[in-house]
Order: sequence, then C-alpha cells, then structure tokens
Amino acid sequence: MLHQHIIVKEIDRADPQIIDELGRAGVATAHEAAGRVGLIGPAIHARQQNFRAAGSAVTVLSHPGDNLMIHAAIEVCQPGDLLVVATTSPSTDGMFGELFATSLVQRGVNAIVSDAGVRDIADLREMRFGVWSRAIHAQGTVKASPGSVNVPVVVDGQTVNPGDIVLADDDGVFVSPSSSGPQLVEAVRRRLANEQEKRERFARGELGVDIYGFRTLLEQLGVKTVQSVPADQKVAR
Amino acid sequence: MLHQHIIVKEIDRADPQIIDELGRAGVATAHEAAGRVGLIGPAIHARQQNFRAAGSAVTVLSHPGDNLMIHAAIEVCQPGDLLVVATTSPSTDGMFGELFATSLVQRGVNAIVSDAGVRDIADLREMRFGVWSRAIHAQGTVKASPGSVNVPVVVDGQTVNPGDIVLADDDGVFVSPSSSGPQLVEAVRRRLANEQEKRERFARGELGVDIYGFRTLLEQLGVKTVQSVPADQKVAR
Amino acid sequence: MLHQHIIVKEIDRADPQIIDELGRAGVATAHEAAGRVGLIGPAIHARQQNFRAAGSAVTVLSHPGDNLMIHAAIEVCQPGDLLVVATTSPSTDGMFGELFATSLVQRGVNAIVSDAGVRDIADLREMRFGVWSRAIHAQGTVKASPGSVNVPVVVDGQTVNPGDIVLADDDGVFVSPSSSGPQLVEAVRRRLANEQEKRERFARGELGVDIYGFRTLLEQLGVKTVQSVPADQKVAR
Amino acid sequence: MLHQHIIVKEIDRADPQIIDELGRAGVATAHEAAGRVGLIGPAIHARQQNFRAAGSAVTVLSHPGDNLMIHAAIEVCQPGDLLVVATTSPSTDGMFGELFATSLVQRGVNAIVSDAGVRDIADLREMRFGVWSRAIHAQGTVKASPGSVNVPVVVDGQTVNPGDIVLADDDGVFVSPSSSGPQLVEAVRRRLANEQEKRERFARGELGVDIYGFRTLLEQLGVKTVQSVPADQKVAR
Amino acid sequence: MLHQHIIVKEIDRADPQIIDELGRAGVATAHEAAGRVGLIGPAIHARQQNFRAAGSAVTVLSHPGDNLMIHAAIEVCQPGDLLVVATTSPSTDGMFGELFATSLVQRGVNAIVSDAGVRDIADLREMRFGVWSRAIHAQGTVKASPGSVNVPVVVDGQTVNPGDIVLADDDGVFVSPSSSGPQLVEAVRRRLANEQEKRERFARGELGVDIYGFRTLLEQLGVKTVQSVPADQKVAR
Amino acid sequence: MLHQHIIVKEIDRADPQIIDELGRAGVATAHEAAGRVGLIGPAIHARQQNFRAAGSAVTVLSHPGDNLMIHAAIEVCQPGDLLVVATTSPSTDGMFGELFATSLVQRGVNAIVSDAGVRDIADLREMRFGVWSRAIHAQGTVKASPGSVNVPVVVDGQTVNPGDIVLADDDGVFVSPSSSGPQLVEAVRRRLANEQEKRERFARGELGVDIYGFRTLLEQLGVKTVQSVPADQKVAR
Repeated sequence: MLHQHIIVKEIDRADPQIIDELGRAGVATAHEAAGRVGLIGPAIHARQQNFRAAGSAVTVLSHPGDNLMIHAAIEVCQPGDLLVVATTSPSTDGMFGELFATSLVQRGVNAIVSDAGVRDIADLREMRFGVWSRAIHAQGTVKASPGSVNVPVVVDGQTVNPGDIVLADDDGVFVSPSSSGPQLVEAVRRRLANEQEKRERFARGELGVDIYGFRTLLEQLGVKTVQSVPADQKVAR
Repeated sequence: MLHQHIIVKEIDRADPQIIDELGRAGVATAHEAAGRVGLIGPAIHARQQNFRAAGSAVTVLSHPGDNLMIHAAIEVCQPGDLLVVATTSPSTDGMFGELFATSLVQRGVNAIVSDAGVRDIADLREMRFGVWSRAIHAQGTVKASPGSVNVPVVVDGQTVNPGDIVLADDDGVFVSPSSSGPQLVEAVRRRLANEQEKRERFARGELGVDIYGFRTLLEQLGVKTVQSVPADQKVAR
Repeated sequence: MLHQHIIVKEIDRADPQIIDELGRAGVATAHEAAGRVGLIGPAIHARQQNFRAAGSAVTVLSHPGDNLMIHAAIEVCQPGDLLVVATTSPSTDGMFGELFATSLVQRGVNAIVSDAGVRDIADLREMRFGVWSRAIHAQGTVKASPGSVNVPVVVDGQTVNPGDIVLADDDGVFVSPSSSGPQLVEAVRRRLANEQEKRERFARGELGVDIYGFRTLLEQLGVKTVQSVPADQKVAR
Repeated sequence: MLHQHIIVKEIDRADPQIIDELGRAGVATAHEAAGRVGLIGPAIHARQQNFRAAGSAVTVLSHPGDNLMIHAAIEVCQPGDLLVVATTSPSTDGMFGELFATSLVQRGVNAIVSDAGVRDIADLREMRFGVWSRAIHAQGTVKASPGSVNVPVVVDGQTVNPGDIVLADDDGVFVSPSSSGPQLVEAVRRRLANEQEKRERFARGELGVDIYGFRTLLEQLGVKTVQSVPADQKVAR
Repeated sequence: MLHQHIIVKEIDRADPQIIDELGRAGVATAHEAAGRVGLIGPAIHARQQNFRAAGSAVTVLSHPGDNLMIHAAIEVCQPGDLLVVATTSPSTDGMFGELFATSLVQRGVNAIVSDAGVRDIADLREMRFGVWSRAIHAQGTVKASPGSVNVPVVVDGQTVNPGDIVLADDDGVFVSPSSSGPQLVEAVRRRLANEQEKRERFARGELGVDIYGFRTLLEQLGVKTVQSVPADQKVAR
Repeated sequence: MLHQHIIVKEIDRADPQIIDELGRAGVATAHEAAGRVGLIGPAIHARQQNFRAAGSAVTVLSHPGDNLMIHAAIEVCQPGDLLVVATTSPSTDGMFGELFATSLVQRGVNAIVSDAGVRDIADLREMRFGVWSRAIHAQGTVKASPGSVNVPVVVDGQTVNPGDIVLADDDGVFVSPSSSGPQLVEAVRRRLANEQEKRERFARGELGVDIYGFRTLLEQLGVKTVQSVPADQKVAR
C-alpha cells in the first residue's frame, strides 16, 4: 500500500482581513479577478439565500457513506475556517447535520462545502450555518473506514488544497491558494472599480457593443446585421 | 460555409395587451389552452419565487463559454422584450449577470430565459430581474466567437422563434407564435372560466371521477375495484 | 395478461397520534431510529421550506403522461392521508396541480410525494399544500390509460406500500410499515434524548472523537496524525 | 434499532425448465406477457452483446463502497442462480470483479445484475460471465459494514425479491415472482405465436394501422390527415 | 384548442444521389461543411458500430409511453426514408422494436433516430437495421393518445423538419434542410479535399501550429511558452 | 489577472519499462496496489473494447468549444506519451478527431483521455488509436481562446499532473505520480501474485468468507443468519 491516510494538524492560512475583504467582493468578482480560475462546478449548490461565507479550507476526504473523518477534522478547525468535504466515490449521503454544526459553531466555523449530502437543513438554515452541497438527503452514515484530513481534494472539478481561501455565496464556491491573498485583493479592488464604472455607463444607456468596441469584432467574425429574417432562413433551424 | 451568422434587427411582436393578459393567466393555463404545446423543458428552472414575466422573445445563439452575442442582442431589445439565450453546445457558464441586467432594465427588459448559466443571482433577485436558467454558476466567459441574434433557437427541447410570446412563472416557461395571440387569449379565457367552475365543485367535495365520468372509463380500461389487497398480491411489486 | 390493474379501497393505517409524534421528530431522526432504512432517494425534493407533513400513504401507479389514476385515488383518501404517486416509466410531467390539491384539502389531505412533476407550484405553496417531487413542470397530461391505486410502488429507490407511515420535511421523505409505529416511536424518543445530550456536549466544546472513542478506531484503521503536510505529498492528489 | 441485517439461506426458486424457456423468449416478450410489469430501469445496461442470462435471484443489499455482503451471498448461491446487487445509497464503485466471478462460476452462477459498478470487465466478457450494471469502474471497496442477503431490494425502480425469476439480455433485465412461472410461460407462448403471425403479415407489407384498426382510433382522437403541411404551420413548432 | 394533431402525407425530399454522397462523407464532415450546424445532441447514441444511414426524415411526435403514431407514420414512408421519433415529454420507453423494423424494411426504410427508447436491439443489429436512440429499454407502450406525423420535432436540442436530409453514423446524427442538398454536397467535396491534404501533411510530421499559423495567435492571446513548470505553480490548480 | 496561461515544454516522465509493466497489470490492479487512489471517475468511458494504453500524461486545459490548445500540445508530445484533455467548463464537443490522431501517431502517441468529446470514432477505432472520453459527438470547435499545456488538470474528479503515469483499459483510467513508478511496480507484482493464489482457491471452491475470515466479522457487525425469510419481513422493504 503506497497510499497513507493522514490527518494534518497545521496548515497555512491566509490573512483573515484579506479573506474578509474578498468575501465581501463575492465569488463572481474574485473568480474574474483571479483570471477566471478557481471555481467549484455548478453541481454544488447554495442551500440558503443571501448568505456569504469566507474562510480557510480544512479539507476532509471520506469513504462514501462514512463520516468518521469529519469527526477527526473538527479538532483541527480554528475560528475562520470552513469545512470542505469530498468522498472517494460519488455520494449523496447526509454525512453532515445539525450536531456537527453545533460542534463547529463552538469552534468558530460557520459553513461547509460538501461534494456529498447534508441533512437537518431546516435547522442549519435557522442556525445561519452556511451550506453548499451536492445534495440534501437524510441518509445516515457509518464510522468505519479510514480517510484523510487536510490533503488536496477535488470538489466538482476543482482541486482544493488545505488552507486555500474559500469564498461562497449564492453563485457558488471559489477557492484560491492562501499565498495568493494580497495579489488577489488588489485585483479584486481594480475589478470592483471597473465594474462600478461600467454599471454607471450601462445605467445611463450606453451599450456594451460601443463601450467594448464589439461592432468591429462582430464584423471581423463575419456576423452580418440585417433588418429582418432573410426569406431563405424562415424555416426553423 | 453554408451557414451565415446574422443579427436580425426587426422582428414581429405580439400585442402588449395580449401578452399582458396571457402573463396573468400563467404558464400552465396558457399551455393547456394552446393545446398542450409550447413548453420549455423542466431543466430550465425559475431562480426566484412568486415572480412572473411575459414578453416578446429576442433570441440569442452563442458559442459555449462566450457571451459576445448577448452584447449584440441588447441593442435590438425594446421595452416588453424578454431575452432568450441558447448555446451551440451544452453550457452551464455564467454568461449573464448583473451588469447585463442593468443594461436591459434601462431598455425596458426585466427577465431572461437561458439554456446556460447566470451569475450575480443575489443581485438579480434584489433588482427584481426575472431569471429562468439551466444553471447558476459564476464561470466567466470570453467574447471571441460569432453567433446570431433573432434566429430560431432550441431551449431544453422547445424551439423558440424571435418575436414569440414568452410567459414565465414558478412552473417554467411557455412560448407561442406572436401571431397566435388573439386566438390564444380567447382560449385562455375559456379555460380560466372552466377551471373556476371546477375549483368550486372540487371545493364543495365533488369528485373528478364523477365530474368527468371516469368511472365508466376505468371500467372499460379493465381497472378492477376491490375492498382490500388481494392475498396473492401481498408481496411488493 | 397476468397483471391486473386494481383500485384497493381499504388499507391498514397507523395510529394518527403516532404518525403525528413521528412527524414532529422529522425524517432524519425517524430514519436513524428505524435502523437507517426507509428513505426515498435525493431526487425527490421538498418544493417549499420549513414545512413538515406526516400521514398514511395512499399510493398511485400511473402511466407516464396520464393522471387518470390520481382522480381514482382521491375518493380513497381519508383525513390524515398523504398521496404518493409513481409512474410506470420515468416522467417529469406536471400531472398534479392546484385543482387536485383543492379536492384533496377538502378530504383532509395536505401533501403529495411524487416521482413525477407537479405544476401550479406558486398556488400550492400559498395553499400550504406540501409538495415533494422529482420535477416542477407545467406539462399537461391525458386521462387515457389504466393504472392502480394502493399497490406497492417504488419512488426513487424506495418501495412504498399502501398505508405506510410517510414523513416528509426539508430533508426529504421517509416511509415505514404502518405496523412499525409503536416500536418506531419508542426508538425515536430514545434517539431524541440521545441527540439532546450530544448537542449539549458539543455546544460545550466536547469533541466527537472523544465522546465516541474514535481516536482508537482511527489508529486501528492506520490513519496517521502529522503536524504538517509531508514533503512527498505536497503535490496535489 | 428496528432493522435487523440478515442472511437468508433458503429461498423459493422457480422450476429451472420454466426459467430456461422464459430466458429463450427474452426480456421484451416476457415483460409484455406479464402485463407490462417487472422491468428494471434503463440505467442498468448490458455490458456485453448477444448474451442472455436467466436464473433465480439471490439478492444482496450492501453499504456503498463495501462488498462484504457479496462474499456472504456466494455461499447461498446454487447452480442456476443469478446475483442481484443493490446498495443502500447510490454507488458506481467496482464492487464486483473477476475473482468473485471465478467463485460464482464454480458454484454454477454465470451472471450478475448490479445497481452499482463492476470491474475487470474485459476478463468477465472473456469468461462469458454476464454483466448488467449501472457502471463500469475500477474503484475498490472495503469490507467493513453490515448488509443483508436475500431480502427485497430495489434496482433502478424495480423491487426484486429473493427467488424471483430474472431474465436479462441486450434489452435489459426483467423480474417476476417465482410463483408466477407456469402462468407466465403460458402467456409467453401465446405472445410468441402472436408475434410470429404479425411478423409474417408485416413482412408481406400489411400495415399496423390496418391490422389493429388504428385508422378509426386516430379519427376518434381527432388526428387529421392532410396531403401537405398546412401553410400556417410552416414555422417550426 | 389551438393545436391540431396532423398526419402529413407528402413531404419534400432531397435528391437520393445527393443524400447518398453526403452519407458517404459522414456526420462530422457534413456538419463542418454546413457551417457547424445541424447536429442532434450527444445523448442520442449509435446503438451499433460501423454502420451509416442516410435518408429523408419522416418525423413522428408521440405522447410518452405511446407508439400509436409510429404505426401511423409507416404508411407515409418511402424507400430511402429514415424515421425520426420524438415525444412530447422525455421518455426512455422501448416504443420501437423488431416488428416495426420488419414493417419498415418492407417499405425500404433501414434506420430510426429516436429521442426515446428502442427494444429488441439484438434482433435489430442482426437485421442490420440502424438505431440511434436515447435509450435501450424493453418497456412496452400503449396506443391511446394522439400525436402527429411529419411536423417539426426537436431531438436532443436540434429541430428536425419533415423531409430533412438525415445522416447518421458512429459519431451521431446530422440534419439539413432538403433544399440545402446541392450546396452542401459542394461544400462537403471541398472539405474532403482539404482534409485529405491536411491528413497527408500531418502524416509527414507537419504540425497544426505551423500549418494554421497558431504560433502567432497563441502569442496574441498571451499564452507563454516555458521550458518547465514555474516554481510557484508547482501545486496543483 | 493573476492567472497566466502557459505551455510547458519539458516534464518529468516515468521509466518506460515501468509504465509498460504497469500497463500490462491493468487499471484495477494498479489502483488497488497504489492504495485505492488515482482513478478518474466512471463518466470517462473506454470507446473501444480489449484495448490497453499506458503512457506519460501530456495535459491540455482548453476553453469549452475550442481545441486550439490541442494543436499547441502536439509539439510537446514524445513517443510513449498519452494526451489528457480537460476543459475549463463542462463540454461534450468533439474537439479531437482523426486528423489530430494522425498527427499524434506520427509522434508515437496512441491514445487520448478526454473530459470532453471526440469524433471520427469509427476511424479512430480502425487506426487502433485508444479513446477514453466523456462523450462521442461530432460538434466542431473554434480555435480562438487561450489555455494551457502541461499544467495540473481535473478529469472527472481526479487531478492529473503533467508527466503522471496514465493507465487506461476497459475498466477506465488510472493515474499516478511519475516518481511513484518503482514502488508501484513492486506493489503491483505483490498484488498479482496474491490475486493468482486467490483465483486458484476460488476456482477450487473455497469461499471468501472462509479465506478472509468474514464469518467472525459478520457476527461482530450483528448480521444474523436465518434459514428462511422471517414472517414479519415478508413484505418488501
């Protein structure tokens, strides 16, 4: 057996102030500022509305149908962390619920990102504990198989490393290396300023095709503007 | 290359008063009145609750991962229009967000139907900008490939032609040719009256099997009524 | 033809007080208390938030795209029942809507679990009629093909027998044989007491690994605890 | 805990000669003869071509990611049996492979139907060991959690009871109660004769609309026959 | 009811010689030659290997779980046609099998494209009857609900009009208006010649980046070429 | 923009003799020997039968609907490499076909693993060019957007690093760090020997429950063995 299951106790985290500022900017803005990378896929849904979370990733890799390693991960969590759970095979089991959330809140953690399922979702919403998950399902799990804490995991197409900056809101989940914080926060500020300027111009009625010069591009790409549907294209296709 | 990408500036739209009346009737009623046709499939979800939109379709056909043609479409939009976006290959990218919505609101458009993804969904909900989409995802897109505006498109199994009447509510999205308006509104009124009569009878305790004469039909179809489960069917199947 | 479509009028139901107590405990707790069985799969979603239903299953087996048998089932329903609808092939059609709900409410039924689609969802939410379904879609259905009422059906991986205790909340849907009621309610009470004790300990900062003795188990399973990521595991995998 | 995991050693099986005759008739014919019931859903694929299996179901219910109970089931198998595997949560893991097949072949079993995954598929094909499964995946599994042998299970929408007659071919998998054998074989013979008569008539050029009298039915249903597409339907919809 | 179910007896078909030549070129080549349009989506799979079909579309729109309209369509088929079946709601039912194929072969039709399921697939393969479908499933269907023949239908994202040229091979299915034949065949010849030239250059070791001048494009797009992985990108992302 | 698209020309590769030996052992065996890690998910299918590939990963990260970066990657390939393609958003487009394969074969590469689609599959099979992909689809792609070559990518849940050992056969795809080769080959040899011993024992009729001592485990887990189905469990659940 070449592979060794491990629990890593100490990880590098980003500066909390930076995480906080990035969290206020939100997932879409940070993803663009980072160069359009770092998004977890669209199968991981926000399970509440108007809720944002930002923190450092404590990662968990579990056997499907088994939540033993979440127990092992809680001890490693610090205030400002965010739990990121993956399984070694696809799973929708409700491996996380209100009792775990109680334990995490006590340690200063207020959100989970899971490639599997959660349960007690009504309680979690009431507790204002943020959930981004693949499924909601009550299916209970055993505590019988080994796994790891704070190793790299993949959540819906995105590798997440322990200590990564994690931002989550209604649009989904974004991750970035802990070391990228200062550069990313600069890029985010520039983007926010740029978006604000564009927002004002759009609100005044300026058009994107003019602002960005797309009329020329469309012409170069061979897109023809016509007054009405050409007769020979009247059939649907 | 036989195919030509085009932007069609002028389309035939239905009478706004008719669109408005159909919108109040809602998707399910209009779909039934039209003869059970015109529905976009169930993968296109309402992304807010208790919100109805009705308008004329301005259609967009984009390359996946590219929102250039949405920029091109905005100029063609008029008050009362509704943007309908399709891609040439399946996509969940967040090709539409709050800046586009700002631009559309300025032009009198307050909803989008997309076969792909949207982002900034919290902002869009707050702006009361209606969204019906296949996905919510923050994934940014380029502006590099040609496409078309106001050509027939397919959105989850349903062909949508430019200028089509589009109704959207919590139940999904319905489309109908712009020319069908007057006939459709008549059919909708008849159906609403009929539904109201049925509603009152059901509320009084009358049964569908009696109202519609289904007892005879069930008998003809060979369905047997028995008091309790026959002994030989006690095993589950 | 060996198979006979039947409508069974009388079924065995559990004691309403027991159903009521189980309903207050909720899906996740009852599922655990029952020994981790009885869950309908995660494709059947709650279509409203903060709503619980509990009742006796009146089951319907319909041809896809056909809701004739729902009409036939309504007559069999009694106060406290819950309609459970399955189709002989996968379907997302909106075979249930507000008129059916009006009829059911009149008979004391306030929820549906459907392996297919429902429509008029905004109305159903306003009526406080509970919906757990595979889809929301306006697609209308015919009344032309035979089916059965009160036979065993399968809903997303779970067999449901007529008369089964059905609990449904934000976490999904749980079913249990009507005869299991007294034993199940005892098990639920024990579990609730145990959960409350655990909740208090977690809230005080005790850890699951200590409470459940998982440190020893982790060691037996060969999981190693290390201070930081071993050098040879620094690449992502 | 109300639920008890069990291994049931003795089950009722159908007459091998009947199973054999049904197997030669095939899945589609037996399903129709049985009254259009008994099919496992289309997610369970044949993993080889031109291969038929027929036998008595020995059922296995396993924890996801765990194949302990398959080991327990093998001992219960007799010549002519067919292994039917389900998991308590959805799984695609390769919980069955060539070593298991070697063991089963030794006991006179030559096929598996699995709601999860199999591996070593090239070897299994070479051994002429039939596979119908949800997935092919190499993912290994643990042997750590309890389950049951010879209890009712659900495989893609179909309840399978221990001892059920199971037929599997390129079209999928059909099950029927062991007690239904004699009646089913009669119905199958009638259907085969009927199909042969129809086949000859179709081959001679007779049409289904004439043979079955569908011209009248189409008229009653309001379907109009026209020479060419009506002008007002020339747009796509 | 605004919608009228119809059977259209006469449709415009393309020249058989043109269809034949396009069929030999194949789906990928014709799709490119047409300007990258006309493909049915990837959910419609070839159900045999090394088999090509080409013909004129006779379209069928059926109620789910009902194959009455296929019976009605057969009479309309001529030698060289190809049956294209869609349903008004998603369906995987085996609504087409060997008896239908017998009838179609007698009329000179040797393939089906279906947005639903087929059965008797082993027989169909043996008959060399081509199948492109969403599913293989034995599920039988009724003959009870109206539909249409030779109206526009949508098959996995692609509108198909009656009389369309349909090409199908191992890569999937392509459709094009019957009137596009002569222009399309010219474009296909040009593309085949171009592909042959490229094939020879690639076989000699020339590179696409040189042949198409992509080195400059990559530079313009900001893609940097480096000798080895930069130190700060050594972590996985 | 923090993110930089790069083409990395030189990567570390494992010893070809080791890759060759691992390839002969196959995916399932190597995955087990590695400690049950390294598998790409089950959505990536073998597109031919009885074909094995083994090589060093040259990775490509492309914009969806764009295959420019595959052109860029070919130049970097050496004999014994295997192309691994991922996209920045989910895609099923046929971004790889026979012309690319011609180019790769010329450079000594005989297989591709793609998280998107391929086309010309009949030609690729005839060329004996191995394909493992998410889809087969003819959809053509543009060459317009930047991406990277030889950066870490994720393919159906598995991170693949440039230079990784890649094994692919009928069971799927396995990857392992290039540096793991010697240790992995040792573990594989041990496993093959162990499997052979087990195979012989199973073939002689020994049972897994005896060989592995599972009778005790089953007892500890509370699994009860009974002669026949207990009366109170005769209903299906």
